[in-house]
Amino acid sequence: MQFASDNTGPVHPAVMAALSQANDGYAAAYGADPWMDEVRAQVRETFEAPEAAVYLVATGTAANALILASLSQPWQTVFCARNAHIDEDECAAPEFFMDGAKLTLVDQSHGKMSASALQTAIAAQQSRGVHGVQRGPVSITQATESGTAYTLEELRGLTGVAREFGLPVHMDGARFANALVRLGCSPAQMTWRAGIDALSFGGTKNGLMGVEAVVLFDPEKAWEFELRRKRGAHLVSKHRYLSAQMAAYLRDGLWLDLAGKANAAADRLAGVLRTQGVSPEHAVDANMMFASWPREQHHRLHAAGAKYYLWDGSLEGADPDARLMARLVCDWSTSPDAIDSFAAHFSR
Amino acid sequence: MQFASDNTGPVHPAVMAALSQANDGYAAAYGADPWMDEVRAQVRETFEAPEAAVYLVATGTAANALILASLSQPWQTVFCARNAHIDEDECAAPEFFMDGAKLTLVDQSHGKMSASALQTAIAAQQSRGVHGVQRGPVSITQATESGTAYTLEELRGLTGVAREFGLPVHMDGARFANALVRLGCSPAQMTWRAGIDALSFGGTKNGLMGVEAVVLFDPEKAWEFELRRKRGAHLVSKHRYLSAQMAAYLRDGLWLDLAGKANAAADRLAGVLRTQGVSPEHAVDANMMFASWPREQHHRLHAAGAKYYLWDGSLEGADPDARLMARLVCDWSTSPDAIDSFAAHFSR
Amino acid sequence: MQFASDNTGPVHPAVMAALSQANDGYAAAYGADPWMDEVRAQVRETFEAPEAAVYLVATGTAANALILASLSQPWQTVFCARNAHIDEDECAAPEFFMDGAKLTLVDQSHGKMSASALQTAIAAQQSRGVHGVQRGPVSITQATESGTAYTLEELRGLTGVAREFGLPVHMDGARFANALVRLGCSPAQMTWRAGIDALSFGGTKNGLMGVEAVVLFDPEKAWEFELRRKRGAHLVSKHRYLSAQMAAYLRDGLWLDLAGKANAAADRLAGVLRTQGVSPEHAVDANMMFASWPREQHHRLHAAGAKYYLWDGSLEGADPDARLMARLVCDWSTSPDAIDSFAAHFSR
Amino acid sequence: MQFASDNTGPVHPAVMAALSQANDGYAAAYGADPWMDEVRAQVRETFEAPEAAVYLVATGTAANALILASLSQPWQTVFCARNAHIDEDECAAPEFFMDGAKLTLVDQSHGKMSASALQTAIAAQQSRGVHGVQRGPVSITQATESGTAYTLEELRGLTGVAREFGLPVHMDGARFANALVRLGCSPAQMTWRAGIDALSFGGTKNGLMGVEAVVLFDPEKAWEFELRRKRGAHLVSKHRYLSAQMAAYLRDGLWLDLAGKANAAADRLAGVLRTQGVSPEHAVDANMMFASWPREQHHRLHAAGAKYYLWDGSLEGADPDARLMARLVCDWSTSPDAIDSFAAHFSR
Repeated sequence: MQFASDNTGPVHPAVMAALSQANDGYAAAYGADPWMDEVRAQVRETFEAPEAAVYLVATGTAANALILASLSQPWQTVFCARNAHIDEDECAAPEFFMDGAKLTLVDQSHGKMSASALQTAIAAQQSRGVHGVQRGPVSITQATESGTAYTLEELRGLTGVAREFGLPVHMDGARFANALVRLGCSPAQMTWRAGIDALSFGGTKNGLMGVEAVVLFDPEKAWEFELRRKRGAHLVSKHRYLSAQMAAYLRDGLWLDLAGKANAAADRLAGVLRTQGVSPEHAVDANMMFASWPREQHHRLHAAGAKYYLWDGSLEGADPDARLMARLVCDWSTSPDAIDSFAAHFSR
Repeated sequence: MQFASDNTGPVHPAVMAALSQANDGYAAAYGADPWMDEVRAQVRETFEAPEAAVYLVATGTAANALILASLSQPWQTVFCARNAHIDEDECAAPEFFMDGAKLTLVDQSHGKMSASALQTAIAAQQSRGVHGVQRGPVSITQATESGTAYTLEELRGLTGVAREFGLPVHMDGARFANALVRLGCSPAQMTWRAGIDALSFGGTKNGLMGVEAVVLFDPEKAWEFELRRKRGAHLVSKHRYLSAQMAAYLRDGLWLDLAGKANAAADRLAGVLRTQGVSPEHAVDANMMFASWPREQHHRLHAAGAKYYLWDGSLEGADPDARLMARLVCDWSTSPDAIDSFAAHFSR
Repeated sequence: MQFASDNTGPVHPAVMAALSQANDGYAAAYGADPWMDEVRAQVRETFEAPEAAVYLVATGTAANALILASLSQPWQTVFCARNAHIDEDECAAPEFFMDGAKLTLVDQSHGKMSASALQTAIAAQQSRGVHGVQRGPVSITQATESGTAYTLEELRGLTGVAREFGLPVHMDGARFANALVRLGCSPAQMTWRAGIDALSFGGTKNGLMGVEAVVLFDPEKAWEFELRRKRGAHLVSKHRYLSAQMAAYLRDGLWLDLAGKANAAADRLAGVLRTQGVSPEHAVDANMMFASWPREQHHRLHAAGAKYYLWDGSLEGADPDARLMARLVCDWSTSPDAIDSFAAHFSR
Repeated sequence: MQFASDNTGPVHPAVMAALSQANDGYAAAYGADPWMDEVRAQVRETFEAPEAAVYLVATGTAANALILASLSQPWQTVFCARNAHIDEDECAAPEFFMDGAKLTLVDQSHGKMSASALQTAIAAQQSRGVHGVQRGPVSITQATESGTAYTLEELRGLTGVAREFGLPVHMDGARFANALVRLGCSPAQMTWRAGIDALSFGGTKNGLMGVEAVVLFDPEKAWEFELRRKRGAHLVSKHRYLSAQMAAYLRDGLWLDLAGKANAAADRLAGVLRTQGVSPEHAVDANMMFASWPREQHHRLHAAGAKYYLWDGSLEGADPDARLMARLVCDWSTSPDAIDSFAAHFSR
């Protein structure tokens, strides 16, 4: 009954096997390994982007912060949803890597910014000439922090607003695969064809050990990115072990299989809870759901060993009937048994 | 004949096995895994430092830059050897993480600063009150970039100077184990007992996949360090895979065995070259040697498949007799055959 | 009919005279001049704060940004009103000087944060341990950007919330004198006795040429502040010309006279507009007022030579009856004639 | 007998008069004043640079740091003389404004870098690809910190090296006028015609109250510079008082007259000391000289009220015959009497 995070599950065996296979003899360091050549080719083919610059880093925060730094200037502001990971969960890493730029928080609903909210926020910024910060990149999270996924139309609406103001667009795709599988579209459709300029392409939450790809659809900033990565201490020396993970991930569609499994688990979870009268707070478009139920029930589940975070409120509290919101996250390894067991404890 | 770097060799099988064992079911993220508890206990025991704060990061540059940032202020300068890795090979990562502090380069001989050179450099800094940068940490590399190791007496000489000025001391121990094995002393003797305040404890160059420990002998800045690590995007989510490597490394003295093997390989290499009339440029105290021979011979070795870096000069050049300096690095996996083969091609 | 800003008016003659008197022979640079000794003594006496550290800088943004940097860490967030100058009008200077810290915007009404809104904002921040930014200083603007002034009780309410969380409090007093005169209290009452730790004490908007004092009621960070000021390129060499201005300002209550005149002008302006049916948007507690009237009337006033900023909307626009908000600012030199003339054009 | 600094003398009366004249009624803030229009035209005409972007700031450190930031990237290094003001006297302001870039110190003799020393330093940097910092701007100080002036040929030699590597060139002209008067060339010849891209054009040390002009001969970075200036808190609100100073400075060649007077005073000082057997350490090309004499004599001069800095050593010390180096600086207001009086005390 492990629903705390997609960071707590194991690495897929095929990825472990790839690491073992890569661990043979010598390999050039710092990304000059042959597995990286394979990764570059795979990403370009997967995204139908033969010119894209492709890099690997060990954390999603690094991917986000380095990309945003490459797309912005220190006197600009980044537009993102009010619950974006880059604002709430990265301890000012984006501001650090951007050398002091700001984030402007855009109202969201179910984790999504609307095109009109984005338009309003951008228009409101920069009426003050040199006195105010200047407009910088737009950052879109797909799937969102609420477990929802923007439709292609919604994405194009947001990027259209950005383009209107001449602003580049970043996609935080820590759960890219989960959204993609749900939308059933191609990676190109959900990125550059929808107006995305640079992507944090997540792997860690979807069965890898710790690798995220950076995809710059316009390679113009490639060398700057490499320098920023090194300056950020994010250029890994024994790089083959990052490359080998990502190569295994993209080989034979493993990444899509894993995301499909995680999404299916979340669907099953939502289904069994619905039968008990619990409605998800947001559409379950990816591998997680949010829902509320009484404190007393939370106590019972925790006592039974269920692991998940409360998104608001606290287990401590006098009122046993107070409803507290839970976040339940599945990954590729979540078993139907765990879900059914959770449901059983839920109803008891 | 792979002597390019200790970053190009494979991960030791015991470490791979530990990763596989750790890959079972769920584990708390971000360092709350049980392997990290083991690492913390191991490091404290190994260093006889029961209060030390211990953290893991994925790169040596991160360890160095984050420690220096924790020990300094942005208006200070760090004192280090003129050929220090933090100055030459980290693309201004220390300056970035220190929010713009400086490095003051101290003259070195065979990679080592003398106490008097350090004293002179520190004294010269800060005669200008608020106009000049203020004195900051001293950073010592052990083993040095020249493959030499400071004796305990030399270390105490340097830290004595630092203490005289009230400055904290960092040790860049990317090749800590190699120096330790050579000195035959205890980890405590080579660190806090010799006046070191914080250590970058290398693992990657010595058989790990990509982990360095940060050891803060004074835990006062522990929480600050954690925030800096997160802000630097260096807090790894699936942290168990870092912990498991480091736990395996410290278990049963594996780290010392591996360093011993690498040092022995360097000794053998120096020995066979000496028999051919080539003298090392510096004492071979760790796992690498520097030596010069004619360009023509470099051409022959490269043609035969030998891999190593030229430390000055270039293979291109008209004069076949010009002597060019090579850096030859061994790791735990360097075979006697590779060395003998190198020697054979050398003499041909 | 100059109501654009309190930055557009002339320097008071007594200040010009003081500059001339200071321009005699030699004087030590960088703040070691005798006028600075006088300023230090004056500020300490004025604020009944014999231990306070006192510094001068040339811009209000420098005063704010340097103080906030001294009170914060780069992984923290500053709490301020949603319309604070530090957020809207300083082009990310605070973020720059704080090495990448954030601002958290607190809802305001008539320019003022309520204690409960501040409490909510602080409580909401930092539920995420190392993943979120940490709580940093509270910054209060007095008088506010809306031309209102917090009462002493309101100030104590805000600082009480800050103290509850252990956070230091900065006051942006670009229009400190205007608020003080209106409240009729002592400088100590409106600052350290109300829980303020550090003050940007404005002079430029109130008749000086370009000087703001920094007052650190707790001198612990004094040396750090001096280093930050120098590193920010804000240590003026011919410092006597800053000192002489500030000394003249504080001598014989000139600063209070000037603020009193500016406030009286704003009162008169509000009065004559009220007679024409125009109500101020916010209480006129300092030297400026905000009010709305039809676009057509704005056109007429501009054509007649009135200078002021539109706070929302634009003169261009089809609808002549649309109401647009104006900001009208007075300074010590605003004449009754200018106000009456404005009123006359208004009614025409 | 005031020879401590050109920061300790008074403002020229014509400049004070200009300030008074500018202090009349209202003027637009932030550089939109008519005096700034005059300054812009004057600078462009003076430098025969009709396209140049021209800005004013209050300190020389701000001019240097902002220009260098505009010409560099945070992963680059600036090449400058080992005794440059930007390294020794600005408390890491350049590194701060450059967001963490480095300075590489080039050997100098009498304050001057040679073209070959610069060439060597630049060539040595960046043999390490992404691992080392990248080559950035060259910064030349004219007149130098040693009181010497580069000849036009020397300047062209340095800028030729920079151009060879594709690097932009900054001139720190805190004492620009002094060097120019000595060389007897045109401002254009000593700047853009000699390969200078951007100039810190000093005024403060030469009779102004506190203004330096920034001249960007290539206006491409003009808007970026404006944003950096604001973000650095260096955009002055009542800007007319900066503009009026600089306008008076450039009007009718006042700036050249003042520099000529200061240089002549230094010449006279050098002359009278030479007659007493004291030789300047460096050529006296500008308004200051360096020379050594016994500690006992320093004591006598200090006792008589002479003010100057010791450049090495300390008045305290046992040996009365030890020779200590003095720096003696003149400005426009240094009187022949003061010099003769100094000489008289010297010989006593």
